[in-house]
Amino acid sequence: MRAPTREGVLRAAAKVAAILPSTPLLPIEIGGTTVWAKAECLQPVGAFKIRGAWHRLTDLSQAERARGVVAVSSGNHAQGVAWAARRLGIAATIVMPNDAPEVKLAGTRALGAEIVLYNRPGGESRDEVAEHLVGQRGATLVHAYADPWVIEGQGSTGIEIAAQMEQWAGGPPTRIVCPCGGGGLTAGLARACPDAEIVPVEPEGWDDVCRSLIVGEIVPVGPNPPATACDALQTLATRPINFAVLRERVAKGLAVSEAEVRSAQRFAFARLRLVVEPGGAVALAAALAGKAALDGRTAIVLSGGNVDPAAFARVIGSQD
Amino acid sequence: MRAPTREGVLRAAAKVAAILPSTPLLPIEIGGTTVWAKAECLQPVGAFKIRGAWHRLTDLSQAERARGVVAVSSGNHAQGVAWAARRLGIAATIVMPNDAPEVKLAGTRALGAEIVLYNRPGGESRDEVAEHLVGQRGATLVHAYADPWVIEGQGSTGIEIAAQMEQWAGGPPTRIVCPCGGGGLTAGLARACPDAEIVPVEPEGWDDVCRSLIVGEIVPVGPNPPATACDALQTLATRPINFAVLRERVAKGLAVSEAEVRSAQRFAFARLRLVVEPGGAVALAAALAGKAALDGRTAIVLSGGNVDPAAFARVIGSQD
Repeated sequence: MRAPTREGVLRAAAKVAAILPSTPLLPIEIGGTTVWAKAECLQPVGAFKIRGAWHRLTDLSQAERARGVVAVSSGNHAQGVAWAARRLGIAATIVMPNDAPEVKLAGTRALGAEIVLYNRPGGESRDEVAEHLVGQRGATLVHAYADPWVIEGQGSTGIEIAAQMEQWAGGPPTRIVCPCGGGGLTAGLARACPDAEIVPVEPEGWDDVCRSLIVGEIVPVGPNPPATACDALQTLATRPINFAVLRERVAKGLAVSEAEVRSAQRFAFARLRLVVEPGGAVALAAALAGKAALDGRTAIVLSGGNVDPAAFARVIGSQD
Repeated sequence: MRAPTREGVLRAAAKVAAILPSTPLLPIEIGGTTVWAKAECLQPVGAFKIRGAWHRLTDLSQAERARGVVAVSSGNHAQGVAWAARRLGIAATIVMPNDAPEVKLAGTRALGAEIVLYNRPGGESRDEVAEHLVGQRGATLVHAYADPWVIEGQGSTGIEIAAQMEQWAGGPPTRIVCPCGGGGLTAGLARACPDAEIVPVEPEGWDDVCRSLIVGEIVPVGPNPPATACDALQTLATRPINFAVLRERVAKGLAVSEAEVRSAQRFAFARLRLVVEPGGAVALAAALAGKAALDGRTAIVLSGGNVDPAAFARVIGSQD
């Protein structure tokens, strides 16, 4: 598999800019420092995943498009692929866990994708389900993070951040703090902004990237990981294509608690008037908890906002 | 008092663009038609009011600035004036009702303004309180809507909408549906976009502008108006400076129910991942309820997002 490149990120950014306005970069004050929140939850599907899907699908040949695409996702990548596929007239089949948030299942369905559920709590292998579909139909698998196009597409977020910070913060980002699941966004930002420090953030107990960076090789999430509200970040391990970039460019990852995530969701609600899902709020959580270093040119990615209303109401309506 | 002009709106828009990025214009599909939501709830103070305040305060002389400003507001204008005053080093005193949402009182206080409470439920006249302060200090009163600078400043929203729709919707707005309290935003949009139909929306029972347009002269809200969650739109009557513009440019206003407002807040939460306060959601409510005509170049202003978390949790967590 080819490696993701900065040239690829720039090409993806140009393609994305032609169809989607830049999401806003909103100033927020944390402990006297103004930092910059990149509101990717305002993308049409409610997450940055639309970027990688668009870059990947627009680079498919006509023959490949005719055979369709398959994706595996708990919800945000699913909606990104479904959105891009509908716009390009490509058939999309999405393999989703049967315990995905209802809002993500409904969103994917509404975009016209075929959904194939797999039994996540029962331990069914989603990759086997997807490979079977790919083999059967000759479709293209669009991996949620271990794909050079997907990585480059997610990296287009960094190109927008850099342009917006040049205009409003007086220079390019010195640091980008971002939510990290499999490492697609993180690797993309690392390629997009070669001079910025890249700080991936994961939920406690799901901090396999954090630990992989310490060990120097890919280690998966441990057995029996704790329950987390961050459904978007429940990846069991990063992959070599991502880790090759992370190892070269990322010094250290951070982990945040579930309570820190809820505080960040409440902060985004009250100060930014944004709905941010748990997994989308981990980078802000690390900043608010004093875990991430901050300066006036630090960007914080709010990666998604697809959350069931009852769950969001519980978080906003309490202080725990 | 001078009348607001389109030249004034353009001058305000240039001043606003120098310090605030355009708020996003987000596509939403309603009944098969794509319309465009202007997310003014994403302004730093959570509402469009920052625009008029900035235009007014930056046009004050050094002598006027030294004597400070006074504003009367239930919260959003308060925060707009406080934000602009802090940035310009001007002392701001805000007269606020003692039953304003806590989030708005706290937000205004956090911006460094002095707050003087008046007893709204007890019938105390806020204008008398403000006039006393103005007389005592020689301060400049920044009226929430009956002021040409304020109207022009709010109109800068329309200049942004027009530029964004040229780029993404293929042409300027044919129609702008907007929340209406005293008529500052409505009159500003009317001056900003002389070729667009302007449709003000009010809460039922507070639809004095709606009825004034029918009668052809200013009529106030009736005695004992119903309770409304739209605290931002509880103005008792528009003023001649606003009505002169509305009468010339606005054919008809609309009114929406409290239940329609809550549905619109839920829609903005789920589809746009935005926190919109009740008063900020009335234009979207009119669109969703089928009361406003829609086409592919219709803009809908989401004017504010300052809402107490418990109140928002109740709306999002239920379906009534």
